[in-house]
Amino acid sequence: MNKDLLKYYDHLKEIANLVSISSTLHWDQEVNMPLKASTSRANQLSLLSGLIHEKQTDPRFFDLLMRLQEDESLSDKQKRSIQKTKQILDRTKKLSNEFVRKVSAHTSNTFTSWLKAREENSFSVLLPNLSMLIELKQEEATLYKHSGNLYDALLHEYEPGMTSAQLDPVFSKLTKDLSDIISSIDLKEDDDSILRQFYPKSSQWKLGMEYLKFFGFDFSAGRQDISEHPFTIAISNGDIRITTRIDENNLGEMFWSSLHEMGHALYEQSLMKYEAGAPESESCSLSIHESQSRFWENHIGRSKEFISKHFSSFQSYFPENLSSISADTFYSSINVIKPNLIRTSADELTYHTHVYIRYKLEQGLINGTLEAKNLKEEWNNLYKSHLGLIVPNDRSGVLQDVHWAHGSFGYFPTYTLGSLYAAQFSEVIQRDVPGAFKQMDQAGFRKIINWLDDHIYSKGRLFDSNELCIQISGEPLNADAFIRYAKNKYSS
Amino acid sequence: MNKDLLKYYDHLKEIANLVSISSTLHWDQEVNMPLKASTSRANQLSLLSGLIHEKQTDPRFFDLLMRLQEDESLSDKQKRSIQKTKQILDRTKKLSNEFVRKVSAHTSNTFTSWLKAREENSFSVLLPNLSMLIELKQEEATLYKHSGNLYDALLHEYEPGMTSAQLDPVFSKLTKDLSDIISSIDLKEDDDSILRQFYPKSSQWKLGMEYLKFFGFDFSAGRQDISEHPFTIAISNGDIRITTRIDENNLGEMFWSSLHEMGHALYEQSLMKYEAGAPESESCSLSIHESQSRFWENHIGRSKEFISKHFSSFQSYFPENLSSISADTFYSSINVIKPNLIRTSADELTYHTHVYIRYKLEQGLINGTLEAKNLKEEWNNLYKSHLGLIVPNDRSGVLQDVHWAHGSFGYFPTYTLGSLYAAQFSEVIQRDVPGAFKQMDQAGFRKIINWLDDHIYSKGRLFDSNELCIQISGEPLNADAFIRYAKNKYSS
Repeated sequence: MNKDLLKYYDHLKEIANLVSISSTLHWDQEVNMPLKASTSRANQLSLLSGLIHEKQTDPRFFDLLMRLQEDESLSDKQKRSIQKTKQILDRTKKLSNEFVRKVSAHTSNTFTSWLKAREENSFSVLLPNLSMLIELKQEEATLYKHSGNLYDALLHEYEPGMTSAQLDPVFSKLTKDLSDIISSIDLKEDDDSILRQFYPKSSQWKLGMEYLKFFGFDFSAGRQDISEHPFTIAISNGDIRITTRIDENNLGEMFWSSLHEMGHALYEQSLMKYEAGAPESESCSLSIHESQSRFWENHIGRSKEFISKHFSSFQSYFPENLSSISADTFYSSINVIKPNLIRTSADELTYHTHVYIRYKLEQGLINGTLEAKNLKEEWNNLYKSHLGLIVPNDRSGVLQDVHWAHGSFGYFPTYTLGSLYAAQFSEVIQRDVPGAFKQMDQAGFRKIINWLDDHIYSKGRLFDSNELCIQISGEPLNADAFIRYAKNKYSS
Repeated sequence: MNKDLLKYYDHLKEIANLVSISSTLHWDQEVNMPLKASTSRANQLSLLSGLIHEKQTDPRFFDLLMRLQEDESLSDKQKRSIQKTKQILDRTKKLSNEFVRKVSAHTSNTFTSWLKAREENSFSVLLPNLSMLIELKQEEATLYKHSGNLYDALLHEYEPGMTSAQLDPVFSKLTKDLSDIISSIDLKEDDDSILRQFYPKSSQWKLGMEYLKFFGFDFSAGRQDISEHPFTIAISNGDIRITTRIDENNLGEMFWSSLHEMGHALYEQSLMKYEAGAPESESCSLSIHESQSRFWENHIGRSKEFISKHFSSFQSYFPENLSSISADTFYSSINVIKPNLIRTSADELTYHTHVYIRYKLEQGLINGTLEAKNLKEEWNNLYKSHLGLIVPNDRSGVLQDVHWAHGSFGYFPTYTLGSLYAAQFSEVIQRDVPGAFKQMDQAGFRKIINWLDDHIYSKGRLFDSNELCIQISGEPLNADAFIRYAKNKYSS
């Protein structure tokens, strides 16, 4: 490897090292950290964000990038890596070190307020810090000098290249088509009472762990823990952690949430073999990441084929609840369509209404058409008008998600995009590896994972979501495959 | 506060912030980290050790210290703080940044080798990395340009001012006196079979947690977890973590190990109110730290008074095992004197033979009179000659402790010093707060903790161990109080 290229990868590895440290602290904050450590942790994370930013904006590294961009001896993949890194860091450079540290410290404080607000079930506890965070995010959006509106400037962070103008028609069509499908289902016929019995925590945990191993999650390079909100975090090469939560009165939560996070983790664990910190070893985007979690959770885990093959495992863990139930009945109960208040417990179809509501609200907050002090009222209005639900308290309403308290504005749409991509990819996988969907055994899943490795994992962050989608399916992002999937599954 | 003094505390706080980050990673490594993350973690810790060293040796900070040393307007406490910081950092400055990072990285690797060696039950797996680490530690000792031998130069890290020449006679007397006491006990009469029944993990955990709360461990500023070796780590202001381990076939492990770590933690949690990173908020030394853990574990937790007052709690958690047992019988069973192979499971008296063996071995390793390749053989010889035990395998022998694999040479003697200090302090506490030892209730413990706060906690690191000991007991370190305690307890 030439000397400049070695320097390039070394510098990215140094950044990755600092990011790993920061990720460990973030994971610890969500899973372990005692409350009184909040202020110190905020200082630690702010300090790290400053160190990371310093390395990311090091002028000598930009000189190196310029030199490498003119180096004709590099391979296409190397050229693409350098171009992508330059793109990402050009954006980072628009923020000052001081600003980055300020946002980091304030974000940690807002997260702590969110925890308190949830405990007290009161949005007003969060409001002051949230308002300030929104102002900081508006300032950040302005600093990016993005061609679109302020919201688009932030959206770019999570879904590079995506704009509200592109999203709006996708959401419109999706919402309309889904509401047609939902209205064709006789909601009264659905019954998930089987899931709403007592299922002991320890058996749920063991079942979930068994299937993580079964699918190939590498426990020598990762772990699963309990946290308030399930998440996946890639700490480093060899350390990919997922979390889950268990409701002893609802079997429908943990298993599929575990599969969901596992989908993220399989992606990250496969990226471990590439150069740490370089676009080669990073995931493509949040929406592509979400396509992976949705694929395993829904296209595999909630499929008729999977349940008919694996229901006996559920029965063996919960004989008292399930021994007299048929696989078909169980399949129906885990696929009940019913509007509810909580996004993370929503079914596959109404889920996208939850996302749409958040998308509209965060657009308003960042573009300045919705004041933070009116957020709760507007949230409750939209739940009434779109899902016909009365929000009984803040914890089941505007305080349910951590994203905004984490400063993540522009993140939510990637959930819906993930489902759309999952459906587009799933059709191709069924065509390319037809047996696997019938087999639903380890050999079949191995084939699917190999396919994912070839078409998605190994591409790292070298292509945008849409480029990847066209490479795979021949089409850009669209809702058609998802609608076909939904009709096929739910209209029968 | 004057401007320089503000700068002084700010700089120390910045260092403390980095140390907090490093401590979180260390805790995570022991409690959570998957094996394949070892290399990345080693890199992260090495990077942090470099950043910390950079701040610790910043020439501008040394200029500031010089200015402050001449500032007559400071209080005695402030002057002492500055003097102590200067002392500590003068020593740090003798190591280069490169050397510090090298030692850190190699220490992490040696720790990983130790885990592997334990798994494979083979000292030879550890040997190559351990040999290299010993060489690095000898180099470090040389760099300190200490007046004593190489071992003394390292010992100073854990017990400032202490030398082998001072330790040797203390150990000699202690070993002789203890062996007299032990030979006066009829070992055959002892019986701890009550403890060696099945005690469910979850009940042991609950009992331990109940007593941590009872004694005043603040769970909003700390936590308890399970790890291979129990330890306490002060991550930051508001985040003091302890770990324990549970043996379902031995009730004698977890409860007293929890009390032990709690003793460390109460000390650290009380230091939280002072300036982070300054000597005011640091513990005096490892031996004084150990005096705290030993005090709660042995002088309280294994006392006749505590057991007679609290045995009913044990009975309520383990009715099947303990309902027909008397408090006196239980007291005897938790105070059985019997040589065994494992230091951390040793009784109060033979414990010091374990320490003495390690002290002699590490002296040899660092001073160059014992080669690492002969360590295992020499270990086994000493266990035969001093405790009459045959070491059946490496895991129960030379691989049992993590200290050397952590690069901690000179640490072990502080365990014995801690017991001696605990006995010296305990006599004074019994004189100053006589009722508390009889009461053994929350009000009494509160009084003891207030005493500890006045005489030890609030002194931070402003005095050396021996200065503190003289302030408290009127005498320097000696083994007399411990021997009186041992005779009184075990000769009856």
